[in-house]
Amino acid sequence: MNAPLPARLLPSIEPRPLPPEALAALRERFGERCSTAQAVREQHGRDESPFDVRPPDVVVYCESTEEVAAVVQIADRHAVPVIPFGTGSSLEGHLLAVQGGISVDLARMNKVVSVQPEDLTVTVQAGVTRMQLNNEIRHTGLFFPIDPGADASLGGMSATRASGTNAVRYGTMRENVLGLTVVTPQGKVIRTGTRARKSSAGYDLTRLMVGSEGTLGVMTEITLRLYPLPEAISAAICAFPSIDAAVRTTIQIIQMGIPIARCELLDAHAVRAVNRHDRLTLAESPMLLMEFHGSQAGVAEQAATVQEIASEHGGANFEWATTPEERTRLWTARHHAYFAGLQLKAGSRTVTTDTCVPISRLAECVTQASAAATAAGMTHYIVGHVGDGNFHIAYLVDPNIPAERELAEQLNDDVVQRAIAAQGTCTGEHGIGLHKMGFLVDEAGSDAVDLMRTVKRALDPKNIMNPGKIFAL
Amino acid sequence: MNAPLPARLLPSIEPRPLPPEALAALRERFGERCSTAQAVREQHGRDESPFDVRPPDVVVYCESTEEVAAVVQIADRHAVPVIPFGTGSSLEGHLLAVQGGISVDLARMNKVVSVQPEDLTVTVQAGVTRMQLNNEIRHTGLFFPIDPGADASLGGMSATRASGTNAVRYGTMRENVLGLTVVTPQGKVIRTGTRARKSSAGYDLTRLMVGSEGTLGVMTEITLRLYPLPEAISAAICAFPSIDAAVRTTIQIIQMGIPIARCELLDAHAVRAVNRHDRLTLAESPMLLMEFHGSQAGVAEQAATVQEIASEHGGANFEWATTPEERTRLWTARHHAYFAGLQLKAGSRTVTTDTCVPISRLAECVTQASAAATAAGMTHYIVGHVGDGNFHIAYLVDPNIPAERELAEQLNDDVVQRAIAAQGTCTGEHGIGLHKMGFLVDEAGSDAVDLMRTVKRALDPKNIMNPGKIFAL
Repeated sequence: MNAPLPARLLPSIEPRPLPPEALAALRERFGERCSTAQAVREQHGRDESPFDVRPPDVVVYCESTEEVAAVVQIADRHAVPVIPFGTGSSLEGHLLAVQGGISVDLARMNKVVSVQPEDLTVTVQAGVTRMQLNNEIRHTGLFFPIDPGADASLGGMSATRASGTNAVRYGTMRENVLGLTVVTPQGKVIRTGTRARKSSAGYDLTRLMVGSEGTLGVMTEITLRLYPLPEAISAAICAFPSIDAAVRTTIQIIQMGIPIARCELLDAHAVRAVNRHDRLTLAESPMLLMEFHGSQAGVAEQAATVQEIASEHGGANFEWATTPEERTRLWTARHHAYFAGLQLKAGSRTVTTDTCVPISRLAECVTQASAAATAAGMTHYIVGHVGDGNFHIAYLVDPNIPAERELAEQLNDDVVQRAIAAQGTCTGEHGIGLHKMGFLVDEAGSDAVDLMRTVKRALDPKNIMNPGKIFAL
Repeated sequence: MNAPLPARLLPSIEPRPLPPEALAALRERFGERCSTAQAVREQHGRDESPFDVRPPDVVVYCESTEEVAAVVQIADRHAVPVIPFGTGSSLEGHLLAVQGGISVDLARMNKVVSVQPEDLTVTVQAGVTRMQLNNEIRHTGLFFPIDPGADASLGGMSATRASGTNAVRYGTMRENVLGLTVVTPQGKVIRTGTRARKSSAGYDLTRLMVGSEGTLGVMTEITLRLYPLPEAISAAICAFPSIDAAVRTTIQIIQMGIPIARCELLDAHAVRAVNRHDRLTLAESPMLLMEFHGSQAGVAEQAATVQEIASEHGGANFEWATTPEERTRLWTARHHAYFAGLQLKAGSRTVTTDTCVPISRLAECVTQASAAATAAGMTHYIVGHVGDGNFHIAYLVDPNIPAERELAEQLNDDVVQRAIAAQGTCTGEHGIGLHKMGFLVDEAGSDAVDLMRTVKRALDPKNIMNPGKIFAL
């Protein structure tokens, strides 16, 4: 049993009782796909955040846009909260049913609706995960690059404006969602965007929905940009004498405009964790894990330039992985960092920072965060999409010891305030959820957050769409 | 004197009289920078569209965000329309004061506020033009790539979500605006976004404002991404036996993932126009004008691949321009296409299409548009940012002959309906303005446009921000 969550982190717990008529209507429509079983509800009332479970009243498994619309129409009629659920991999409490209500499970909406290789576009149902998508389109010679680590659903990735390891080259969900099918809070079905690469047709409803964390509607289908698989891919790791040296190498790569596809930092703790977890023998010092995409000659040229920059900063032991197997081994280790990191401390959960800062400020932000955690005696590790100025310091806390959580939150606060002072953001890719509502006000200012509230109230006057997230109303 | 505009194109002409108290308040605050002179008003009541002038009641020249806020506060108090004005180069009637009101001229807000070369970011006042920006940052080794042809203001480019010749490589204003200072319809000053490259912090107000055509607030400062000037740049022209061959070449370039920086189509009419205007001797057949950015080796490799693809489609006479002077000559000719084209027919104005379609549908859309104009005996020329699937057919009409306008509009209708049927958009980069309000409904559907209206009504309940544009309320 976890210690109770600090009250300041859950400002919006106002359960609304589920009217029996609403439950009856859902049962009539969905039969066995409407569940109130305790285990099912609990599974849908948590995510990868350190928060305690807040189960919804009922879980409905939807299989089509029309079914989602039917759920939302019932919810609208009875003013009941609706929380879209993909794979449950979000990190900021997005899925907790803080006001009760209906969890709409979209995992069965897992069809690739249509792929247009000649246009480099694909339309998927929201429950399709990124790995499933890439498996299903492999024969086309195209791929979808956005890779947040977890095998998240593309609906969830759109809802949190996710990005990850490839964003430095290919952008985030913001840049790669072309259009959406959305069920509005009134249960209407609208389409936003088109399959054209650009458009100036009216308000950018696609970008309004992407990153809205389920608070403005339920995304049920998503049209995405795809990219040709590069002719050549090469990956390399390089050890550095310090975090500072690794980050300064990155800064120079970006400032020179080298089109690096991935540029990931792991601190010595993270390297130790993946060594243990994946039985690797990487040098346990700060490391950059890089990937280059392009033509054979282009990749070779990029790699040579980067190797030169790295060596100027003391980078040593450049190791290349050009075969798919070697690359997979390296990237699998990176993707395991989260779970590998958890094993640095038995029984722990993580409080994870997600700041993103202008690239020139990154070295100081990362080194200060690392030093502060070390000085506080907090077990931690750092991974970072440093090409974007985005890094995560994961504080490993014993959920039974409130003082550890509090310390982690205090350290996180400091990291965030430093990022905001550097004209950066409290969240590069995880979203606000429950956890960062206070930080959003610090970052955007209360007038800008009020403008967000105005949009929310106008589109969802009954406040049924994932209420209590992003901001208090 | 022009013929009157067809009524269906101006559905929102409902002038609101300017209360004398509002004018007095503006005069008191702004003195000589508040003008009601007929010539000044007329200059601010038109743009590059074929529409007749609709002058505002008064023009105010603002020099700071605070001054813009003061104007909007006065406008809010008296429920008077506010129309932001940059350089007047928009194409869809955005600047016409169809309900009267105050034109806020931002041309004097022409300061580059701060440039951070190490972060590849810059903050400018909204009246800075793209050419001015690139002149002022030249010493940094960076550039701002978005280039719509006209030397538009960056505020105007943000307001219409502009793009242009470099978008195929660098994206549009959607991808390149990091943050904004906005005066809300209530006269408050908010900031959206940060200087970080990505963020998941709440609703994407930046993207909501970009492309909102002045209807949700006045953008007064803009933070933009910059890019390192490429190590090598090479431009080439290539003549093709048909529009179809040129476009099919483009499609293959995009499908192969070649990072071409510019890929412009000019049809034979456009080439003839620039030949005359710029005293050039280009072969008067469909032409691609291309530019490659990268390392010396990378540019050479891209160029070789493209030359091979072009020759498969009958592309001949590849001419290279590697010196800055040669490149400037070619691109100047391209940028003169609009005014050069007007001279194909004395005294004419243009009705210009702006559809953007999935790349595989581009060849059929362009060739059908060209054939239809020819069959109708309509003088026209075609230019296109074909790497994005975006092209413009400019119909040259005598503004004194209503039947010519009507015919142009009918041809435009057909081009748009074909684009929408191909899952494309009625406007890739010019915006909706007055001209495409009907097309927006065709494209997005009435429920999605209603959602836009809901946002508009919530943020601007008095409907003072550029009223009558994008949609009727």
